[in-house]
Amino acid sequence: MTNLDNKCINTIRILSADAVQQADSGHPGMPMGSAAMAYALWMNHLRFNPKDPHWPARDRFILSAGHGSMLLYSFLYLTGYDLSLDDLKNFRQLDSKTPGHPEYHLTPGVETTTGPLGQGFANGVGMAIAQKYLSSVMEKPGFPVMNYHIYAIVSDGDLMEGISSEAASLAGHLKLGNLIYLYDDNHISIEGDTEIAFTENVEKRFEAFGWHVQVVDDGNDVDKISEAISNAVIVTDKPSLIKVRTHIGFGSPNKVNSESSHGSPLGDEELRLTKINLGFDPDKKFHVDDDVLDHFRKRGLQGAIENSEWRNNLSRYSKDFPESFEMFSAFRKGELSIDWAKHLPNFPPSESGMATRQASGKTLNAIAPLFPFLIGGSADLAPSNNTNLDSYTSFQSGNYSGRNLHFGVREHAMGAILNGITLTNPMIAYGATFLIFSDYMRPAIRLAAIMGIRPIYVFTHDSIALGEDGTTHQPIEQLAALRLIPNLVVLRPADANETAQAWRVAIEHKTGPVALILTRQKLPVFDRSIMPPADEISRGAYVMLGGEEEAELILIASGSEVHLAISAAKILKERGINSRVVNMASQELFEMQSSEYRQSVLPSNVRLRITIEAGTTKGWEKYATDSGAMIGIDTYGKSAPGEVLMKEFGISVENILATAESLLTAKNNSKQ
Amino acid sequence: MTNLDNKCINTIRILSADAVQQADSGHPGMPMGSAAMAYALWMNHLRFNPKDPHWPARDRFILSAGHGSMLLYSFLYLTGYDLSLDDLKNFRQLDSKTPGHPEYHLTPGVETTTGPLGQGFANGVGMAIAQKYLSSVMEKPGFPVMNYHIYAIVSDGDLMEGISSEAASLAGHLKLGNLIYLYDDNHISIEGDTEIAFTENVEKRFEAFGWHVQVVDDGNDVDKISEAISNAVIVTDKPSLIKVRTHIGFGSPNKVNSESSHGSPLGDEELRLTKINLGFDPDKKFHVDDDVLDHFRKRGLQGAIENSEWRNNLSRYSKDFPESFEMFSAFRKGELSIDWAKHLPNFPPSESGMATRQASGKTLNAIAPLFPFLIGGSADLAPSNNTNLDSYTSFQSGNYSGRNLHFGVREHAMGAILNGITLTNPMIAYGATFLIFSDYMRPAIRLAAIMGIRPIYVFTHDSIALGEDGTTHQPIEQLAALRLIPNLVVLRPADANETAQAWRVAIEHKTGPVALILTRQKLPVFDRSIMPPADEISRGAYVMLGGEEEAELILIASGSEVHLAISAAKILKERGINSRVVNMASQELFEMQSSEYRQSVLPSNVRLRITIEAGTTKGWEKYATDSGAMIGIDTYGKSAPGEVLMKEFGISVENILATAESLLTAKNNSKQ
Repeated sequence: MTNLDNKCINTIRILSADAVQQADSGHPGMPMGSAAMAYALWMNHLRFNPKDPHWPARDRFILSAGHGSMLLYSFLYLTGYDLSLDDLKNFRQLDSKTPGHPEYHLTPGVETTTGPLGQGFANGVGMAIAQKYLSSVMEKPGFPVMNYHIYAIVSDGDLMEGISSEAASLAGHLKLGNLIYLYDDNHISIEGDTEIAFTENVEKRFEAFGWHVQVVDDGNDVDKISEAISNAVIVTDKPSLIKVRTHIGFGSPNKVNSESSHGSPLGDEELRLTKINLGFDPDKKFHVDDDVLDHFRKRGLQGAIENSEWRNNLSRYSKDFPESFEMFSAFRKGELSIDWAKHLPNFPPSESGMATRQASGKTLNAIAPLFPFLIGGSADLAPSNNTNLDSYTSFQSGNYSGRNLHFGVREHAMGAILNGITLTNPMIAYGATFLIFSDYMRPAIRLAAIMGIRPIYVFTHDSIALGEDGTTHQPIEQLAALRLIPNLVVLRPADANETAQAWRVAIEHKTGPVALILTRQKLPVFDRSIMPPADEISRGAYVMLGGEEEAELILIASGSEVHLAISAAKILKERGINSRVVNMASQELFEMQSSEYRQSVLPSNVRLRITIEAGTTKGWEKYATDSGAMIGIDTYGKSAPGEVLMKEFGISVENILATAESLLTAKNNSKQ
Repeated sequence: MTNLDNKCINTIRILSADAVQQADSGHPGMPMGSAAMAYALWMNHLRFNPKDPHWPARDRFILSAGHGSMLLYSFLYLTGYDLSLDDLKNFRQLDSKTPGHPEYHLTPGVETTTGPLGQGFANGVGMAIAQKYLSSVMEKPGFPVMNYHIYAIVSDGDLMEGISSEAASLAGHLKLGNLIYLYDDNHISIEGDTEIAFTENVEKRFEAFGWHVQVVDDGNDVDKISEAISNAVIVTDKPSLIKVRTHIGFGSPNKVNSESSHGSPLGDEELRLTKINLGFDPDKKFHVDDDVLDHFRKRGLQGAIENSEWRNNLSRYSKDFPESFEMFSAFRKGELSIDWAKHLPNFPPSESGMATRQASGKTLNAIAPLFPFLIGGSADLAPSNNTNLDSYTSFQSGNYSGRNLHFGVREHAMGAILNGITLTNPMIAYGATFLIFSDYMRPAIRLAAIMGIRPIYVFTHDSIALGEDGTTHQPIEQLAALRLIPNLVVLRPADANETAQAWRVAIEHKTGPVALILTRQKLPVFDRSIMPPADEISRGAYVMLGGEEEAELILIASGSEVHLAISAAKILKERGINSRVVNMASQELFEMQSSEYRQSVLPSNVRLRITIEAGTTKGWEKYATDSGAMIGIDTYGKSAPGEVLMKEFGISVENILATAESLLTAKNNSKQ
């Protein structure tokens, strides 16, 4: 380690502290403590080209401890990414490229949005799965075009979160040797010394998970850290954890090793003392010496050269293996063949019908051959979620071209792993569990929605109709709760053919995640020769019945309740009452339609409306209007056969008819 | 192990399989596989009295693998709890006492509601914390009146879930030697052999967490299992895991060791073969031989004798330590001194004001001495959540009378641990984190609400006004999402005095959990001499301004937006427009009021309404009505100073005024 190295490292410390001080907000301690560790990684190992942040075979760097964002921004600026010193000066200001926590899509070089602890850790496992898959299906002898590593810096907080245990256990099981994590072991969390709550033996835990574990005692020893990273690279059959003893706030004479440097600026005076302590001019702010900038930029250039060599290799690959190359390129651009949807199954009308989870399984199996970069699985419920790809093998160590993932009973990690896979263009990933357990993975779903990436969730057993498993397994508020997440599309098809079309929507929707909400129980398959085509659900809502005449009443239902609404409408018709049935499979997609279309489906002058969904009524007020009524369940479920429960909770044709009757009576009374 | 023991164990297997077969739904494999293990525990160790399921010093038994509910129901029936053979025959039927998964409050002897995996595991850690605390503060030399253990049966699925890692790490840290878990190591999960996703070294992981770990190779060897439990009891400074190699579906000739016995009935023919295999009459259902029943009932009687001895000891205790005894008894009955609320702090009016998180901290510290069984803490954010009890020490090994819990960065386990503590009468427990991270603990919150128990959540940093931490830390949909959970009271006070009163509501509300939603930023403290008293928030919503005259417009706000509404109303008044400000701190509490009261606050004839909350507008439609408007944020936040963001997102007096203007104009236009 040279003096210049040391100066470079200290420049990162000072830049970080300066930016936090200027913003009067932020986390200086983490970047100061882990600057040397990150330096060892970025300067000696990480493969990146600042001028091509999307280089497919770049190494991935994840700052799982996202609060240390200035560490990452410093490297991005210094090595020559499209991030300026002015951007650093705008740290944490409105619409800057340097928000408080790193945000994907906002800052070039940021691989994933981090901050909520544990998420970045698990994202990396997803990226590692994607790398193994791509390497396995794309590479040919002499063409290691998908050979790269996934690195992360993880904190005490990351390791305390359960999601990281889930992800680590799976990573060890899968022998993801492409995963190398540096553990910023600084002994400090917000409440003080980690001794107050976190005294487990981390090394031993990770060894138990099947990881290769090393310890570096001096977090400022770049050579030792670099050596450990080299060792980790050599171990190809285990993920690696390198525990590095760092000192939060290193360089600050009075705040080193103290939680006081974690989440607040050092203060002007302490910052001056820190600069003096590290041999910097205390009167200069955001200062980078020329030799320092030059050193970092050279590293960036070196990456550009590696990138160029890789491109040459890929060019040869494209000639030797044009099909593979074209496929990869087309999917990276997001190009779908125009008529791919023709391969979606077409289910014949049937009164006895089919569960939408079953239709989903058939659809998934039908389209899997068309999408070679589509992989997925379930959190140990594949036989119930119907997500197994029957013609493909399982993704396991020794068989990384398998397309069926077995997440184990680890919903939260599944969510974050899906994010990591999906962040790897051109991969598409799906994950399945019971709808009730979407609660276990909400933080990961939210991050997918924030990032605008597109994992697909298969949530089956979508109401009390699942029956005997009872209260703990019956979703009530989950549907409405998912609909609250901005930029998540929730889609609840009403029959088998709509389920096939729901998959089409999910595959074609690229700007955010999509949740498919499916039944355990059988539903009738509608006769589309007398009803609008099933692909109408791509509009979110459409008129299924009674579109031709003026309706007195609109019945709005989703999923398994649509056929009840249709039955009720037919009886009303017999009673001389014109009603209309609107199938609202997705509130979000409906709201994206033109106001003309929305008005045509839900004419604003028809105020007598009944919404029907076997879940909480909350979230339906807008569509029911002040004059309407909502049929749903605002308490918890019970344990009994599904059909018994649907009656018990009033999710029935009878209740729709009674509600319609009372609305019409009230209206007639008010006219008199 | 005698022949009778064997027959008893097989009776449990057959009863379970019979019940599942009769229900045509359920999980026979787990009870059949772990019957011997549970038998060793219940017959040789567990301290219980079927006739007094609430005996304070009973051992707790948790079936974390809740899907094996028939195992528990069998023991409850056989040992003499208030559960009959007919109840077993009604397994999984409507309103029976034997639902699909064990439910607290529904079935005597069920200590906690389980089913969602990992929850029971973490509940036990909470119960163990409660035991240690009670033992520490209640017991006197010669009076081990709070000496009991917490036992659980946990499954592969429990151990895969991250929440159990979080809870196990904390349990090891706290050296909870009163915790003894039997791990039903049956090598099978729903997708097949656990080899497909779960190959970590569980023993080593738990040793890394600081647990005492034993392995029993034969899951049918009652003596060995019993010996291991005895060993675990002796180890008082570490929680214990006993890994027991069991065989799912044991006794079934064709479905043993197969996932086919996990979640479906064996089938009539296989059940016959199983009965024959175990030496039972294949033509009898729900049959229990007299000697078997007698053997179990004797065990129940033995428990009653122990209970009686304990009561005698407690009676002596009550004479020697009447104060302690009275205090314990009073709190167990839920008796509060009538004037306790007088001790709540009274904050003087102030324009510059105080953050509600700060007011919460002051309140909590003021009332802590009144509630000796109130303990709590934060998921490593105590300084930010203001939850530290400054006059009390931390709960740590060696100091189990400490009242400050340090959960570490483990929100999900915190939620479930709060449940476990709160299930231990008379304990009250609170837990804190940022509102955004309520997403990490939703499954545990939901279970508290289902059970009707009363943990208190302190969720601070409740909007974009938290500022620079940005998108990942700014709640948008969290408030609305919490409001969706049935039986959870969400309470968002508008100033310091309402915060004190919110704590009163939380302490006095005993039938479900309460979430306090608090600001990071300062809010004005209202002058209550010219406004209604702060304790009005116990009604959920009340008129803060403009109650005396007919209003043209109602402004409905919560928390930090109430003072904006008041400012806007004053300006409107100057402009000649009468408006009313309704402070809606809790939609749930408001809905519990009489319709007269609700009408008095929100007269149904005043349809021009504006709701204002710095979060999603969803959930406010009902109060805004079709004629009103909603001010809120339906996208994600940004990183910038809080006051900048509030303006950027239109959470401002200006926007309220502009919205009012446009509503009034529209109304006037429609009149013309």
